[in-house]
Amino acid sequence: MISQHEFQVATKGRGTYDLSSDVQRFVRDAGIESGLCHVFICHTSASLMLCENADPSVMRDLESFMSRQVPDGDPIFSHDAEGPDDMPAHIRSILTQSDLNLPVRNGRCALGTWQGIYLWEHRYAPHTRRIIVTVQGD
Amino acid sequence: MISQHEFQVATKGRGTYDLSSDVQRFVRDAGIESGLCHVFICHTSASLMLCENADPSVMRDLESFMSRQVPDGDPIFSHDAEGPDDMPAHIRSILTQSDLNLPVRNGRCALGTWQGIYLWEHRYAPHTRRIIVTVQGD
Amino acid sequence: MISQHEFQVATKGRGTYDLSSDVQRFVRDAGIESGLCHVFICHTSASLMLCENADPSVMRDLESFMSRQVPDGDPIFSHDAEGPDDMPAHIRSILTQSDLNLPVRNGRCALGTWQGIYLWEHRYAPHTRRIIVTVQGD
Repeated sequence: MISQHEFQVATKGRGTYDLSSDVQRFVRDAGIESGLCHVFICHTSASLMLCENADPSVMRDLESFMSRQVPDGDPIFSHDAEGPDDMPAHIRSILTQSDLNLPVRNGRCALGTWQGIYLWEHRYAPHTRRIIVTVQGD
Repeated sequence: MISQHEFQVATKGRGTYDLSSDVQRFVRDAGIESGLCHVFICHTSASLMLCENADPSVMRDLESFMSRQVPDGDPIFSHDAEGPDDMPAHIRSILTQSDLNLPVRNGRCALGTWQGIYLWEHRYAPHTRRIIVTVQGD
Repeated sequence: MISQHEFQVATKGRGTYDLSSDVQRFVRDAGIESGLCHVFICHTSASLMLCENADPSVMRDLESFMSRQVPDGDPIFSHDAEGPDDMPAHIRSILTQSDLNLPVRNGRCALGTWQGIYLWEHRYAPHTRRIIVTVQGD
């Protein structure tokens, strides 16, 4: 059995957005007990990740780290038509994930205690991001 | 329903190779309307990614960035039997993807407007790379 | 057909642990000829990767590289309640994979000759890590 669903996330610009409850709700509604849940983002300047979900300092540290690794406005980048965050957004997306696949057990995503599903917006400006969730199983 | 297919890509050495039309053609031929398309590369020195597909400067910037992050011939690497690009190729593969999973809707991969499917060859020399595509769904 | 299985790996602290034979055994026992095998780690401070499986120096070089990229005890990190390896473990997990999806052909994971499936423990201390394997196909 396959169940597919598209939804949108309105971001307020660079930062992380917790999708865990949206995804869990869709899995529950799909009525699949055992299988897999696939989450996909249809963009190359925002990405997905599983990350620690308890301490907000993790997200701040993660942003500090990534900003240092992939500096906005780095002079080695020539692709900057949309600004200093343009090329870094593509690289941040490639270094993280555009799709996540999660086991479904007992009718829900079997995430670990500290695992949350996050959208990471890499652009400064607010964007509307399309997400496609596909649940398959029995 | 599951449909599986293996094909080869002859690379000309380090650089990116657009697989989007190959993958889309296979999905179309599989006759699956709704489901998932999985793309896998059977190697540890070339990898896969979804990346911006419109401006060639993105690929050049991406290569500049990765070459700086994972320098060829870095003296911290001892695994260099096949040359200065040997260990960097493994690390570049690990920092990107060996498998991509893409939603299939209306009989095709539901990629975003700017998303292309790329093979990234990390070795200097030309290589023959094996790709396995698996489409499943209804 | 879907077959799901959970097992645990007792790590001895930071380092890589080869899961290839565990995963291959489960695929064989599942009796699925053609499809996909999904491997998931239920943690945010240990991760999964496909990596070269022949020369032990690859793992040492990989650890040297990652330790330099994401330094333990880096003063930019404020999340250090569990020690200098706490935040780096989360970042290392995000830069690698929490889930891998592998093609199944002829009743086994169709890995390339040099591809091994590894758990990468990022914490110094030994941990018990939960892995969920899901095999689906015909």
